[in-house]
Amino acid sequence: MIEHRWTALVSLLALLTYFWMSTQVPRARIKCGIHAPAMSGDPLLERTIRVHYNTLEWLPIFLVSLWMFAIYWSELVAAALGVVWILARIFYALSYYAAAERRGPGFLIQAVTTAVLLFGALGRIVYGLATGSA
Amino acid sequence: MIEHRWTALVSLLALLTYFWMSTQVPRARIKCGIHAPAMSGDPLLERTIRVHYNTLEWLPIFLVSLWMFAIYWSELVAAALGVVWILARIFYALSYYAAAERRGPGFLIQAVTTAVLLFGALGRIVYGLATGSA
Amino acid sequence: MIEHRWTALVSLLALLTYFWMSTQVPRARIKCGIHAPAMSGDPLLERTIRVHYNTLEWLPIFLVSLWMFAIYWSELVAAALGVVWILARIFYALSYYAAAERRGPGFLIQAVTTAVLLFGALGRIVYGLATGSA
Repeated sequence: MIEHRWTALVSLLALLTYFWMSTQVPRARIKCGIHAPAMSGDPLLERTIRVHYNTLEWLPIFLVSLWMFAIYWSELVAAALGVVWILARIFYALSYYAAAERRGPGFLIQAVTTAVLLFGALGRIVYGLATGSA
Repeated sequence: MIEHRWTALVSLLALLTYFWMSTQVPRARIKCGIHAPAMSGDPLLERTIRVHYNTLEWLPIFLVSLWMFAIYWSELVAAALGVVWILARIFYALSYYAAAERRGPGFLIQAVTTAVLLFGALGRIVYGLATGSA
Repeated sequence: MIEHRWTALVSLLALLTYFWMSTQVPRARIKCGIHAPAMSGDPLLERTIRVHYNTLEWLPIFLVSLWMFAIYWSELVAAALGVVWILARIFYALSYYAAAERRGPGFLIQAVTTAVLLFGALGRIVYGLATGSA
């Protein structure tokens, strides 16, 4: 099976990026001296948790939209948009770690990328169902 | 590729419903005057966050069960159950936003729908493995 | 469609395990006498919530890696590793419910299993893209 290898590669790289974010939480705990299961008490810890959880919140939308776009429209466009999403998420994380008010641009780029994947896939699927085309 | 377009369509509509729930959180923040990253302090904000996160908690079960049912049993039954799930989730959200004690019926319908998808797919897969049928 | 039935079976069993964890939260609430939406106030409740949410955090990585390994490498190895993951997660849950300091071994086994699935799939996909093999 040779199909969709680029989509698979981008999915796994996105999940590695997400995993890297989760590893920042215990690091922030050590820096702040706040032990689990406390989830608050220091702005750096709270920002680090928000980066991790905001990405978790968006993962189902991103991953499903990525695959639907790849399967029903274009593998390579989906993979390219997936790379943009990963880079925007890394930029969002690093900006948000530095200061809460700097999180906007990275967040916006990943949101727009996800929207293009989702509405692109949705439009193509509806078009396919309406016209009966393959 | 013309396969599973209805399942894909329902998946993306479910994710749009979930995205709509996430957008209600900043709206509730403005109404209550409680800024991020605070996650509590007002019942309306807490209910809005619970709607979003309860749906996130159920998304992996729903999405995987939906696709397994569609692939191993029936595309159209899966898609129809998926539409019921989306409507139940919207009803759950609107009821829960209004009052915590009204969240029961919508939650129950989405839970039963998910259970039918999950155990339907599970039964069909075990049956297929046991009988070796296609 | 007879393909990937073992992967599908393991995915649904993993989601049932995860669902069982979610049902432990209201049970812990009754035991501790702490009502929703409060998410803290008793160590048993906090540990029960952490088991549920830690598994949710790992589900996207596990499920995607499981399927990528099954599709691009070996269905049966993926399914066997998936069973190890489920058993490790149950062991992790029961240990963590008993005492926070006993959660290590179960967590480690599921982490190593997920890493084998993720890097196994990643390696095979990159190898396939590099050599152009099927």
